[in-house]
Parts: sequence; C-alpha cells; structure tokens
Amino acid sequence: MRATLFFGPHDVRLVEVPDPHLQDPTDAVVRVTHACICGSDLWPYRGEFFKYRDNGRMGHEFLGVVDSVGADVSTLRVGDRVIAPFAFSDGTCAFCQQGLHTSCVHGGYWGNANDGGQGEALRVPYADGTLIRLPDEVDLSDQHLAAMIATLTDVAGTGHHAALSAEVRPGSTAVVVGDGAVGLCAVLGARRLGADRIIIMGRHDSRLAIARTFGATDEVRERGAEGIARVRELTGEGSAHVLECVGTAQAIETAIAICRPGGTVGHVGLPPEPVGLMAAYSANITLRGGVAPVRAYIPDLLADVLAGRLDPSPVLDLTLPLDQVADGYAAMDERHAIKVLLEVA
Amino acid sequence: MRATLFFGPHDVRLVEVPDPHLQDPTDAVVRVTHACICGSDLWPYRGEFFKYRDNGRMGHEFLGVVDSVGADVSTLRVGDRVIAPFAFSDGTCAFCQQGLHTSCVHGGYWGNANDGGQGEALRVPYADGTLIRLPDEVDLSDQHLAAMIATLTDVAGTGHHAALSAEVRPGSTAVVVGDGAVGLCAVLGARRLGADRIIIMGRHDSRLAIARTFGATDEVRERGAEGIARVRELTGEGSAHVLECVGTAQAIETAIAICRPGGTVGHVGLPPEPVGLMAAYSANITLRGGVAPVRAYIPDLLADVLAGRLDPSPVLDLTLPLDQVADGYAAMDERHAIKVLLEVA
Repeated sequence: MRATLFFGPHDVRLVEVPDPHLQDPTDAVVRVTHACICGSDLWPYRGEFFKYRDNGRMGHEFLGVVDSVGADVSTLRVGDRVIAPFAFSDGTCAFCQQGLHTSCVHGGYWGNANDGGQGEALRVPYADGTLIRLPDEVDLSDQHLAAMIATLTDVAGTGHHAALSAEVRPGSTAVVVGDGAVGLCAVLGARRLGADRIIIMGRHDSRLAIARTFGATDEVRERGAEGIARVRELTGEGSAHVLECVGTAQAIETAIAICRPGGTVGHVGLPPEPVGLMAAYSANITLRGGVAPVRAYIPDLLADVLAGRLDPSPVLDLTLPLDQVADGYAAMDERHAIKVLLEVA
Repeated sequence: MRATLFFGPHDVRLVEVPDPHLQDPTDAVVRVTHACICGSDLWPYRGEFFKYRDNGRMGHEFLGVVDSVGADVSTLRVGDRVIAPFAFSDGTCAFCQQGLHTSCVHGGYWGNANDGGQGEALRVPYADGTLIRLPDEVDLSDQHLAAMIATLTDVAGTGHHAALSAEVRPGSTAVVVGDGAVGLCAVLGARRLGADRIIIMGRHDSRLAIARTFGATDEVRERGAEGIARVRELTGEGSAHVLECVGTAQAIETAIAICRPGGTVGHVGLPPEPVGLMAAYSANITLRGGVAPVRAYIPDLLADVLAGRLDPSPVLDLTLPLDQVADGYAAMDERHAIKVLLEVA
C-alpha cells in the first residue's frame, strides 16, 4: 500500500510501505477512504516544533472502512464505515470515561512513529475505544456528506471545544481569534451553543466570507494593539467568551487582552511559545482548553451533520486525490487553500 | 504625619509628609493602627518589575480608625475601626457587583502615586465601597486579634482565592506550590473549603511547620523535575486542584506539571515572566485566578476569625513598630521573616 511519509522540511511523499496488520487483539485495520491535511500537520512539514523522524508517517484525520478486527474488538465488523478522531484512546480509562480522551492512559496520536491517516490503510489501536461506526445510511460516495463528516475528525470538534471551553451560552457575545479552519469552526461552535453576536478576528477575505455564512456578525481585520482597541470599541469592556484558535503568543495575549475581566479564553491553538500572563492575572481571566477530546464530541456533532443542522465542509476548499498529497501540503503552506480533503479510495 | 516612601532599591524610609485630607465627597481619611509588609512589596523594594517612582508611597495592607468622611459617605462614621483590602473600589460598578472588585472601573491600588498603607494616615477613595467596618466588640489592642484581622487585608483572602480558583471542594486532594505567607494561607483556604489531603511544596522548615498546623498533610521539599516526580508519586496522575502561590514561570510550570489532566491550577502569584503553556494545552488544564478580589472575601473570613474558626496570624512572624519599617523590609528581603506586622498607633 502507499502512505505519506516525511522526508524532510517541505518534502512529503506518497510512497510504497508494508501493509498494516493486526498486532494486538484490540486492533483494527482500516482502509482509508478520505483523509484531510490539518493546519497542525504544517508544524512537522515545516520542520518546526513537532519535529518528525525521517520517514515519519503523516496525517491524523481520516474516514475509512474496517478491513480486519482483532479478537477482542466487539463493536465493529469488517466492512463497517468508520470515523476516527485525531487521537486514539482505549475508551475505558478514567480520562476516557470523563470525556477527556486525549489524556487516555493508553492513548496517542496518529503519525510519526504511529501509522498516519494520509495513506491507504492503517492499524488502529483500541479500535472499540477509538473508532465510531457510521450509520448504514451514510453514503461516503456523496462528496459533500463525506467532506462534512471528515471535518469531525478534528477541526469541527476542535472549534466546538473552543466554544465549550470559553463557556459560550445562549445570548453570549463571543470573539474568535483566527480565521483558519479551526477559527471558522469555532464560529460554528459558538453559534451552535447559542451565541448572539460573534466577532471574528482575521484578515483573509475568502475566510471571512465563510465566517459570515457560519454565523459571524462582525469582523475585525486589525491585529495587535489596533485589533484589541477595535474589539473593545465593539464590546465595551471586552468579551467574556474569547475563542483562541491560533496558538502563537501574540494570539493568546490578544485573546487575553480582549477578554472581559472575570471572563474566559477558550484556547485550542497549539502554543509553542511562552505566553505573558500578567494581563490574565490582573483581570482574573481564566484560560481553559487545550487539545480537543474530539472523540467525545463526534456522536453529537455527527448527529447534527446527518440532521442537516451543521455543515463545516466549506473549510475544505481544495479536494485532491491522495497521490497529490504533496501539492495539498504546498497549497496550505502557501495559504492558497484553507484545508485540503484527500480522496483516497 | 509620617509615611514610608521609596527612595531607591533597598531603600525605604519613614519620613514626614503632608497630612492627607478629603478631596472627593466619597473619600474618608483613615488613621492607621496596623499595617503589614507584603511579599509583593518586595517587587518595588528591589526595584524589580513594579518600578516605583522616587518618593512613591509604600504599603497596601492596613487597619485603622476613620478620622474624617466626605459628604457622600454613608456607611462609615468618624471613630469607626475599619479594614481595607489591598485595592480600593467603588462598590457599585458591574465588576464590584459580581464580586470582582479588583477590576472596578474606578478602582486602583494603594501605594506609589496613591497613598500607602505603611504610614500614619491615608486618604481612602470610595470609602463606602472600599472599607469594611469592624464590629464594635473588636478590640484592636488585642495583638493576636489585630494580627488575625490584618491578614485579611491581603494574604488570607489571596490564599482563599487560590483555593476557590482551583475549585477545591470537600474531599479534594490539593497541592499548594509555595510556602510563603500566601502559600500558607492557601493551605488554610484549601482546608476551609474541605480538602482532605493538602500537599505543600516548599523548603523552609519553619514555614512547613506552620503549614502543618494549618492543615497540610504532606510536604514535598524537592523542586523542578524531582518535585514534580514526588507529587506524582503521592497523587498518581497529579492533583485536580493545584494552588500556585509564587508566580515565577518555574512555579507556574510546576503547578501545571503536577495538575491532573482536566484539572485546574488556581494561580495567585504575580507572573512577571512568560509561561510555557504546552503542558496545560496537552492535558486540558485550566488556569484560573489572578489578583484576589479580597474585598469580596473579607466579610466571610472576618466572621470566621471572630468566631474562632480561622487564624492566619502565624504568618506574621515578626512584629515591629512603624519606625522600624526599613528593618521589616530587610528581614523579609533576606527571608528572616515570613511577613511583618507594623504597629502604627
């Protein structure tokens, strides 16, 4: 089979690798039908922060079909169509039980030393705990439906986590920092939790256009001190619910600066740099969030997608066949695409 | 009258200054009976971080007697004994109404350009909103009682804020990072909120002895990686309730590292340095807290002190007359004293 491997900064290639096989009785092997490229895949792609080993596997977002199951797998059968969150988890430990699957004591992330999502198949540890079976009526040959569901592997759930972490409630005013795929999904998440007013901070016309269709009511294109001043003009003392979807120190410090004293920043951007916390300290602003336990959110979000109430698919603005995966990375790296869907099989 | 002024790093002096007088109809003038030196006074004393202007006023913790009141002051009369929190506040704005007096739209902090607590008298803005009248039966000539009440101006309320921010509940296991006056009061705060097990991280014998009398059940003397490993030995996956009472990047990063995934760090240490947040992101650890709205907490804590249920006074391990204020600073700067009580009148 073929899988996408890391050969060095800005050099990923689809190459022949050994077929995956069951190793533990809790494993499944899944043939991938759809995969996505994530903004966070750009860290290893660029050789920054998350440095991958040579020939590390790429990708953590995929849908597929169960090809084989270990003896202890009880909830899945060969031929089931499944969705995976971007992390695997046993489904039984104390953290999984409380919905924090990303802290599973047996869990881990796809890619690098583990199998990756951007290939034709992969071994899935703890298949019962990790995979969610798609209902029989789901037709993955429906490209729009497949794209909607593919967003649930990561960005839609991560945006939801931002809104949940920021304690967005019916009638809230929320501010979303960042107009990448996660920021756009955070707009959807804030609207889904009932926010009345959603201000998005971003500067890309095409992305802000999607934000408006997702429910953003205001946009702030300025950054830094000007952006902070503009949000304060719109909100008075700042917003009690800020959704931070970038992760740089500047973005997190902006999120704190536009948060109302006593309010909450829900942060889901990976934070590689140290962050100044004096403003949060001075105004008793809570920082809540982190890597999203998407496994916990997929059932509800999938139900909303299947019921026609939720469509995050516009964030997938470029669809390519798997053998053009390198072009997909380049398009996202150069910001020609927000997010890439790879059609695998 | 005399007040303590900043003359330069490591140089504070009690000098003659003009008497304070009413400026606004909401003011009171208070004659100080007791003041304290705070660990945070050491920032300007050392010329670090909070740099004070030449001749800036020192001190933000005091008890006293109302000497005069403006025409609009309705809750206080001349002769009332009062306690002030370390910040003044109007008592009426939206933030005061929600108990976040440190974010009062008209509020501010004692000292530097404002009058300070380490003097014989001071002007108190928004006297109705700021000061709390002590019951008639309180005898401030009772040194022990005065010391207990003096801690409520800052450290006792700040320790309570750490416990509240860390969501300590009956039966919790809590870890307190730091054995300064605030850390010790955080032990009291955690016990008061019902923690069953309280682990304190510190390394000073005399302070840890007080921590045990305050309710600490375990102590961890190691720092850094060793300290983290030791707390994990004691708690398994870490504690869901960590009370950070130092503020350095190392202390906050330690607090995050010993926090159970999904748990909460209640932080009250002033954080001058940028803080690495990757571990908080990876484990969805909430950072909540900041500068304590002590004004909101004084009534309940005072009731507990007067009922004999709460005694934070052991943190005041050195009592000096006001004219030895410089010795008091030196004793705290050199760690010969945990915290100094100044007898003023």
